[in-house]
Amino acid sequence: MTDELVPDIVIRRLPWYLQTLNQMAKQGLHTVSSVMLADRVGTSAAQIRKDLSYFGGFGKQGTGYSIYVLIEQLQKILNLDRIWRVAVVGAGNLGRALTRYQGFANRGIDICLLFDNHPSLVGTQVGSLTVRHVETMAADIQNNAVKIAILTLPGDAAQSTADELVLAGIKAILNYTPATLKLPSEVQVEHIDPVLQLQRMMYYLVED
Amino acid sequence: MTDELVPDIVIRRLPWYLQTLNQMAKQGLHTVSSVMLADRVGTSAAQIRKDLSYFGGFGKQGTGYSIYVLIEQLQKILNLDRIWRVAVVGAGNLGRALTRYQGFANRGIDICLLFDNHPSLVGTQVGSLTVRHVETMAADIQNNAVKIAILTLPGDAAQSTADELVLAGIKAILNYTPATLKLPSEVQVEHIDPVLQLQRMMYYLVED
Repeated sequence: MTDELVPDIVIRRLPWYLQTLNQMAKQGLHTVSSVMLADRVGTSAAQIRKDLSYFGGFGKQGTGYSIYVLIEQLQKILNLDRIWRVAVVGAGNLGRALTRYQGFANRGIDICLLFDNHPSLVGTQVGSLTVRHVETMAADIQNNAVKIAILTLPGDAAQSTADELVLAGIKAILNYTPATLKLPSEVQVEHIDPVLQLQRMMYYLVED
Repeated sequence: MTDELVPDIVIRRLPWYLQTLNQMAKQGLHTVSSVMLADRVGTSAAQIRKDLSYFGGFGKQGTGYSIYVLIEQLQKILNLDRIWRVAVVGAGNLGRALTRYQGFANRGIDICLLFDNHPSLVGTQVGSLTVRHVETMAADIQNNAVKIAILTLPGDAAQSTADELVLAGIKAILNYTPATLKLPSEVQVEHIDPVLQLQRMMYYLVED
């Protein structure tokens, strides 16, 4: 697989395909055509065939894809055939909600560390985790070989914390803060900002 | 403006442009070239020029765009030249975090209603709001002419709640639950699932 050649926009669609295929498998389906999958995902069959063609052939023309083979291949492509340990930094409402989020466990994600600097939070229990002090963050992340962090702290602490995380070995950051992070290009960053998602929908709303 | 003709993928980029332009304005800049804007946003100048061309000309070739004109126009296109009232349904950790989120106030979003069905939460104070019982949700939403809802409740209650919201007049839903919602096509839905964002990043991570 030649990673460099696959456009990021294609990579972004693969988790959606995988999620849809998992739902189909749960419903007892065994094979799927690109037309069916496209219909469920909300894209075109041509798009799906083109996206999958980057990774070689998954099915014969006309007979459709085996859902299980496709799931297995997509998991392999996305490096999901293993468990990824993830640290949450910020144990406020959002950090606690994410730590307890039910949707991670069976999808290859293990939230294993939770940090804060506030005395009233450090040492408290959130789900199965105890909130640790950010003072030990770098060491804890290195000792646990964690590569992924979720940032849920105030925006003004985001950049310095992200810098520290990268020094400690973090390679991917899911950024829930309002801050735009400047990090080395080899570090993956995804910014989750509810405002941007809301603004896109507002375009379609006509005021009565 | 002929809404139907603008691809959704273009609409999705406009909030990013707007956010970047606002940052530039704060830094004291007055004009911006498509090359500069592209560099900040992380896309190409041709892309930006093409996206903006859907809405007519914003600047003269070679002299760049006026940042203030561009901000004003984008706000108008995205219907942000007014305040949108939003209801949060689910007053758990995530719902409370969103209700208190600092990033809404100055970006045209007014979280004005917060609902839950749990006796221990109904009547409690979250920021400036009192948690209301979902029993009065439909009436409260109609009385306040709210068109946008944020869903932060357990996945198994998501579909029935969304159905009720749509009957009450909700036209856009930001869905933080793990559930995939089936709603009339005229209702806008955005699904925020941290797993999909994490999975995309995992593609780029190579295990040591």
